[in-house]
Amino acid sequence: MIAHVFIELKEGVADPEGESTLKALRLLGFRKVKKVSSIKVFKIDIEAKSKEEAEKVISEMCEKLLANPVIHRYSIRWLEDVQEG
Amino acid sequence: MIAHVFIELKEGVADPEGESTLKALRLLGFRKVKKVSSIKVFKIDIEAKSKEEAEKVISEMCEKLLANPVIHRYSIRWLEDVQEG
Repeated sequence: MIAHVFIELKEGVADPEGESTLKALRLLGFRKVKKVSSIKVFKIDIEAKSKEEAEKVISEMCEKLLANPVIHRYSIRWLEDVQEG
Repeated sequence: MIAHVFIELKEGVADPEGESTLKALRLLGFRKVKKVSSIKVFKIDIEAKSKEEAEKVISEMCEKLLANPVIHRYSIRWLEDVQEG
C-alpha cells in the first residue's frame, strides 16, 4: 500500500523557501497569491496487513528519521483517500 | 482558497533523495518498505472567484516558476478534497 507522508513545518517556524517562493511569484505578477508554505512529502510503498499496522510503522519512521520533532509535524494520507490531480 | 501543488519527478528521472531515504530506512530495520519517492509540495493560499480560475493561475505558476517541465509533473489538489491526517 502507498502512503503520502507529509512533513510540514510547525506553526511559528520560519519557512524561508515558502517566503522566497511567494516573493518570486509576486515579482512575476501573481498578485492574488496570499501565502506559500513549503512541505516535504515522501511517497512510501510499504507491505503491511492493515492500514493501522502500516501507520504505526510509518509513525516510527517519522520519529526516527523523516521528521525533526523540534520543527516538524507529520501526517499520513493514503493514496486511495486523496483525489488524484 | 488553499491548494496543495504537488511537484513530482517524472517516471524515469533519478530520485537520489528517495533512494537514500529508502536505504536509510532499511538500515534502521524497516524491512517492509518497498519504495520511497520524494515529492515537493507547495501549499498555496490564493484569492480567486472559482477553483477553475485558481487552477488556471496555479498551472501558470508551475509552468513559469515552480516546476521544471523537463523533469517534473505537477498536480493540484484542493485542501477540502483531501483527508486531513
